[in-house]
Amino acid sequence: MVHGAAEIATPAGCAARSGRALGEIQVLRAAAVAVRDGRIAAVGPEAELRARFEPERELDARGGTVVPGFVDAHTHPVFDGTREDEFELRTRGASYLEIAAAGGGILSSVRGLRAASEEQLLARLRVRLDRFLEHGTTTIEAKSGYGLTTADELKSLRVLAAAAARHPVEIAATFLGAHDVPAEHRDDPARYVDLVEREMLPAVASAGLAEACDVFVEAHTFGLEASRRILARAQQLGFTLRLHADQLSLLGGARLAAEFGARSADHLEFVDDAGAEALAAAGVTAVLCPLVPLYLRQEREAPARRLVERGVPVALSTDFNPGSCYLQSLPQVLAWAALRYRFTAAEALTAATLNAAASLGRAHRLGSIEAGKEADLVVLDVPNHLHLVYELGRNAVRAVVKGGRVVLEREPAAPILGARGPGGSNGAGVR
Amino acid sequence: MVHGAAEIATPAGCAARSGRALGEIQVLRAAAVAVRDGRIAAVGPEAELRARFEPERELDARGGTVVPGFVDAHTHPVFDGTREDEFELRTRGASYLEIAAAGGGILSSVRGLRAASEEQLLARLRVRLDRFLEHGTTTIEAKSGYGLTTADELKSLRVLAAAAARHPVEIAATFLGAHDVPAEHRDDPARYVDLVEREMLPAVASAGLAEACDVFVEAHTFGLEASRRILARAQQLGFTLRLHADQLSLLGGARLAAEFGARSADHLEFVDDAGAEALAAAGVTAVLCPLVPLYLRQEREAPARRLVERGVPVALSTDFNPGSCYLQSLPQVLAWAALRYRFTAAEALTAATLNAAASLGRAHRLGSIEAGKEADLVVLDVPNHLHLVYELGRNAVRAVVKGGRVVLEREPAAPILGARGPGGSNGAGVR
Repeated sequence: MVHGAAEIATPAGCAARSGRALGEIQVLRAAAVAVRDGRIAAVGPEAELRARFEPERELDARGGTVVPGFVDAHTHPVFDGTREDEFELRTRGASYLEIAAAGGGILSSVRGLRAASEEQLLARLRVRLDRFLEHGTTTIEAKSGYGLTTADELKSLRVLAAAAARHPVEIAATFLGAHDVPAEHRDDPARYVDLVEREMLPAVASAGLAEACDVFVEAHTFGLEASRRILARAQQLGFTLRLHADQLSLLGGARLAAEFGARSADHLEFVDDAGAEALAAAGVTAVLCPLVPLYLRQEREAPARRLVERGVPVALSTDFNPGSCYLQSLPQVLAWAALRYRFTAAEALTAATLNAAASLGRAHRLGSIEAGKEADLVVLDVPNHLHLVYELGRNAVRAVVKGGRVVLEREPAAPILGARGPGGSNGAGVR
Repeated sequence: MVHGAAEIATPAGCAARSGRALGEIQVLRAAAVAVRDGRIAAVGPEAELRARFEPERELDARGGTVVPGFVDAHTHPVFDGTREDEFELRTRGASYLEIAAAGGGILSSVRGLRAASEEQLLARLRVRLDRFLEHGTTTIEAKSGYGLTTADELKSLRVLAAAAARHPVEIAATFLGAHDVPAEHRDDPARYVDLVEREMLPAVASAGLAEACDVFVEAHTFGLEASRRILARAQQLGFTLRLHADQLSLLGGARLAAEFGARSADHLEFVDDAGAEALAAAGVTAVLCPLVPLYLRQEREAPARRLVERGVPVALSTDFNPGSCYLQSLPQVLAWAALRYRFTAAEALTAATLNAAASLGRAHRLGSIEAGKEADLVVLDVPNHLHLVYELGRNAVRAVVKGGRVVLEREPAAPILGARGPGGSNGAGVR
């Protein structure tokens, strides 16, 4: 049983919430959560639950706030090296496309991944999964896409499967062979589209290593026709669909996502009203990544408020990747959604839990604190859910429960006090 | 001795750096820092230092990056309650001045501070100092300003002195009686200016509880004439001067700071070229708070790049306070300076260490890793200083040294692994 919470804050239901309902959450005070066999047995006033259950083990929220485990619906966590040099180049004025044209960008991570062994990649991924968990994320969507050969894409997906088997963070794997056209096919991109369609997709499907297929729909990567071919074949093979849509230009990715009934259309900085209406009509979830344009120094941001008003279900994600957003903290994304999109704390919470879970086809078992759902919970060291967006720059996660098990516990770091030193401070000397 | 660093990154010198020099830092690889009697004895190649010194105690940076302890030159840490409700109101569209007019804003914190006991305030402040330290800040400027009576301002300053006596974080106390006009003087603000000038300033001076005096120079608080009277009296009594200048409008606060030779002019969102030139000519440090306009949902940001080009020494700070920026992480401010001001990692580092120390009159002993300076060091779990701005949303601080003493050590949280649970996860059950 999780008890001692000042507040339990959660969206409700088994489907994505949109429009006004996005901001309608349940807030229970002095409440507890009873857990049985990894699932939530009951949520309610502590006294009432104590009368009904005899807890074997207790987790004391100590006056904190309990929310559902965060679900990150868009990440690229399988890569080797970091790309801080490109960040510095952008600071000095280089653009995303200039860096890509100079052999940087996605293709520099492709070179790194191809050179790395499965063991190296697994070791790096495990550290990254630890960091997701440390920031309260219990489920992530994770893409391949830095291999861009059949062998290297399968390698990336095997690394995800191996990590998932031994780490508390649940992984929904997505095949992203259509992330970019690799250097060896730049002279004839159509040949690479054939490769994805005829070789990679069937190989990934028969290996059973991914549940979804994603395509980076953009003029410099995969245009509408090439994207259509890949998406059609993927759908035929039983993959659910996710799209990088209208991020750098208005190519029509959102309408394409609606046309195929994709699970999600992601980024959407350039989506227009027609695209938004198509998403709403088709019930496609818009997975927004509010830090990415800031990270890329692009002025244009997704019309988040407009998407919500038009009834598009909206999710929030980090887009964690080594190039355009080195960020793993969903609470930080929630704060930025409040600051840049004017999402209320409740809207941001729903978008990063229930709606994100829905975009991964998991809303029936994840994304809210309700009887019957799996017990994925985060205990935050804050007095109420408004602090999720009010406090910036601090990781308030104190404990994480995944599938009914306490998988992380943190204490705030306290200073080491000792005899007063010459520098006027306390602590143990290092000289 | 601090050894095992992949990189030691630091600005150099005992004065604020401006223009091109802002971004010129020293980067030593495979280097170490020898400490003696709380001060830095030497910095250089580890082998060389080992030949010269016999360390009593070692701190292993484990391939991380060592930078100077961060110096936060603008904070308001003495308050009672938080104001997340106002954050939510701003999300829904209310402005700073509308919230203030409705009895919110600074005056709501004034009511809270007056009602709180010295013990309550001290307990809250200690937790906040722990958090500064946890994020690598070893020295802060800390303002009173939520009391606004002689007794309550003295109470706030006594709380700062009491905390400083027993906490590793060094505190430079600033009297900010001229933060706002309290409710009981709203009918005759001039009477409050008299009170600050004739009663508060002499009382604070004779108690010796503050080294600086700050004034919130703004049309709705203290206009140019009232500010001049307070600043002149403060200077006469031996206080150094800091100003909240040109934050919400172009009233001329920057020029006023230059006229009085203030240590700093802070915020400066509305400063014009004349103001910038005055600051540069007078050598006044511009203390910028990049998160504040975003937090207040103001489009207007400080012309940081222009201030640097005109030769104004620039510092970066959090402006930690319960209303307009609940943030204590300077690394997050550095990242935002890179994203919004296009500061390079090196420029941001200098601004949050040496330049901030200079604005507090401490550049001769703090703000850089050089022989003779006090040993205030932060060990970061990153391979180089570019990661300071490249990684968002993670607290990479692994250890903090203040005055030669290890005052904080943190380990990244690792997941608790156990038998696989029904929810598909590991860890110990809670049911």
